[in-house]
Amino acid sequence: LKPFPSLSARRSSAAAGVAASLRLGDVIEAQQFDRGALTEIFEVAREMDALERGTTCRGAGRSRVLEGYLMATLFYEPSTRTRLSFEAAMRRLGGEVLTTENAREFSSAAKGETLEDTIRTVEGYSDIIVLRHFESGAARRAAATADIPVINAGDGPGQHPTQALLDVYTIEREIGTLDGIKLGLVGDLANGRTVRSLAYLIAKYQNIKIYFVSPDVVKMKRIDLYEAARGKYIVDKKVLDVLPKHAVIMHPLPRLDEITVDVDSDPRAAYFRQAKNGLYIRMALLKLLLVGR
Amino acid sequence: LKPFPSLSARRSSAAAGVAASLRLGDVIEAQQFDRGALTEIFEVAREMDALERGTTCRGAGRSRVLEGYLMATLFYEPSTRTRLSFEAAMRRLGGEVLTTENAREFSSAAKGETLEDTIRTVEGYSDIIVLRHFESGAARRAAATADIPVINAGDGPGQHPTQALLDVYTIEREIGTLDGIKLGLVGDLANGRTVRSLAYLIAKYQNIKIYFVSPDVVKMKRIDLYEAARGKYIVDKKVLDVLPKHAVIMHPLPRLDEITVDVDSDPRAAYFRQAKNGLYIRMALLKLLLVGR
Amino acid sequence: LKPFPSLSARRSSAAAGVAASLRLGDVIEAQQFDRGALTEIFEVAREMDALERGTTCRGAGRSRVLEGYLMATLFYEPSTRTRLSFEAAMRRLGGEVLTTENAREFSSAAKGETLEDTIRTVEGYSDIIVLRHFESGAARRAAATADIPVINAGDGPGQHPTQALLDVYTIEREIGTLDGIKLGLVGDLANGRTVRSLAYLIAKYQNIKIYFVSPDVVKMKRIDLYEAARGKYIVDKKVLDVLPKHAVIMHPLPRLDEITVDVDSDPRAAYFRQAKNGLYIRMALLKLLLVGR
Repeated sequence: LKPFPSLSARRSSAAAGVAASLRLGDVIEAQQFDRGALTEIFEVAREMDALERGTTCRGAGRSRVLEGYLMATLFYEPSTRTRLSFEAAMRRLGGEVLTTENAREFSSAAKGETLEDTIRTVEGYSDIIVLRHFESGAARRAAATADIPVINAGDGPGQHPTQALLDVYTIEREIGTLDGIKLGLVGDLANGRTVRSLAYLIAKYQNIKIYFVSPDVVKMKRIDLYEAARGKYIVDKKVLDVLPKHAVIMHPLPRLDEITVDVDSDPRAAYFRQAKNGLYIRMALLKLLLVGR
Repeated sequence: LKPFPSLSARRSSAAAGVAASLRLGDVIEAQQFDRGALTEIFEVAREMDALERGTTCRGAGRSRVLEGYLMATLFYEPSTRTRLSFEAAMRRLGGEVLTTENAREFSSAAKGETLEDTIRTVEGYSDIIVLRHFESGAARRAAATADIPVINAGDGPGQHPTQALLDVYTIEREIGTLDGIKLGLVGDLANGRTVRSLAYLIAKYQNIKIYFVSPDVVKMKRIDLYEAARGKYIVDKKVLDVLPKHAVIMHPLPRLDEITVDVDSDPRAAYFRQAKNGLYIRMALLKLLLVGR
Repeated sequence: LKPFPSLSARRSSAAAGVAASLRLGDVIEAQQFDRGALTEIFEVAREMDALERGTTCRGAGRSRVLEGYLMATLFYEPSTRTRLSFEAAMRRLGGEVLTTENAREFSSAAKGETLEDTIRTVEGYSDIIVLRHFESGAARRAAATADIPVINAGDGPGQHPTQALLDVYTIEREIGTLDGIKLGLVGDLANGRTVRSLAYLIAKYQNIKIYFVSPDVVKMKRIDLYEAARGKYIVDKKVLDVLPKHAVIMHPLPRLDEITVDVDSDPRAAYFRQAKNGLYIRMALLKLLLVGR
């Protein structure tokens, strides 16, 4: 696992020459980010947001900072939503994309090429690999093999760190701070990799209260505070009436009936802004990993 | 439904500032185009044709007018032919493409994300959406949701307006006029959305005679003239012998046995030129919707 | 079949004007390349290699020589590995790509559009077609139809010429010469189209010894030298011990158990360099076919 380039590493490398350390980084799991790294990623994400909003409707102002770079999306299971977000991020910065939605076909002829062999081939074609895999730990194995950066876009029941990053970023954008917040996590938490990654990240901040609300008793480790609850929860107009005015309603999407459509127009409904924040977070990570700040 | 930008709207917006009204437009159904709009679209399509032909074999002369723009092709059912035509059009103008050939997977996790939710996510990533859907009316719903332009690339048994536009454009290019023509429509007309869209468009012109030739009795409304016929019709060398010299043979492709291969070399066989015209029409629409004339 | 542009043809066309003959070429089968053509393709491939290595980690130095060109990958059967290699090659030279991984859908509506009709449509959208097909001879039929260059990316049991070119190129890069080498071909040779294409190419050089090692008795025509053998062969550490120091171990990938993982770190293991050479060979062919040297 190549460490995500820290501020200090980048500073020393900037002294040493052109972006020497910037090819070192991978984004594999929530645990690799300390509070300083989060702050920096969020700063760049805000720059990306400003960049996008500053673009005129005639396209002027588009960044070309990643022109000449090629990102391979290597998806062993389909996830159109995540893939599109990464591909849009790359293109918004002027970069190019190689798409492999059906990466299992790499091994179809031989019925069993290893992930490592596939990674060695794809890294010969691209500058950064975005990997979606059905097995926990696959992203870490890919990063151990590749000389180019690897971003984990979800590895089975394991981690989905960019989703967790965009969740935390959304909280900060909506509320203005992360310290001292109260966070309610609702749903099938036992199987939720996003929840696990998010809980890791949010624990970096101070005075956090997390309420776990789930049909099943939840057992999560490494978290100081939790409350388990039962029942099925739907956010609708009635819930809005009792929610505080400063509350923020988030959802990773897609939703089914967890949030009713009439909630969408409420200013506290942040889930579509949250999806857009995913674009900015992924733009920020691609920029940091490929060219630095 | 955001109205397709009319000449006058664009003129006033040009006076008011930079392309203010140009994000208003959608291309949803044949009915939205009046004769003036058709004339203007065809003018731009001819410019696109000239641009393409003027490009040297070394690539010089390629337009970059849509550089920095991102088109999402959101296809809920496969249509490689239509998708390629749109993607080629976007790239020929310097724009970029996000491809979703299997848009149903957006909702696979939740088994039922609404089209509206998907549109809200995709419009966060792109500047224009090209939608292919299996349900009539889907494009109109998407346009009602999106703040960016939506182009209908076929919605089930509903409309396929860009196909109709390229058909009418082809007639004009081949014959030199649209007024006074005689048009024979042959095939399974009852289920043909292209025929319906085409009949709407061609009715904008004067002294049109349309002959419907179909195995079944055809019932179409809003058309003054029709003749129904029975039988199976194949265009072959024998038909060529009795067709007027100025006749034009068109087909939306793919063909099976409706037209024999030995007809291809006849100058009246326009179907491959027709396919190419689809590229020019789509280039014209993308340019008009994204940056105006 | 449009002949691959020879040195002399290009010279005369350079005298006659701008790249007049360069649209003539197709890459269909190994037999079309004489030793002079191979030498020239390998020269350009080495330039591509140098270009790639000379690119800084900030992307500076990327070639834009194919900017404005559009390559259509028309794949009637999936081959993610080959497709990615071509698409990376095109993008590394600044070109754009239209992807059709499921080209069979071109004909799905009609259950039987001919390859020729599909080619006529796609050539209207693109500048070069890379065709993968399940039928032997499909690439030749496509080339006979298209006015733009066609590259055969494998046609069923037929040919896979770019794979053969990269194999020969790899031998030259690893050993420094092609004349006088001893080549062992191991595996299911009877059904190997790559082996057939490779044997054709290598026979252009002098004093070549080819050893065919296969479970079955091999019958290959047009080759002067061969030895057949039986058994199943695995390259592992023990084989490395008896292989000469200057030996080169190649494999088209994906591998299963033919080569053990502990061989990978041996300097004689060339298969990942070989995959990378595929990128350079395809960059060279695209450049030669679209803009010449």
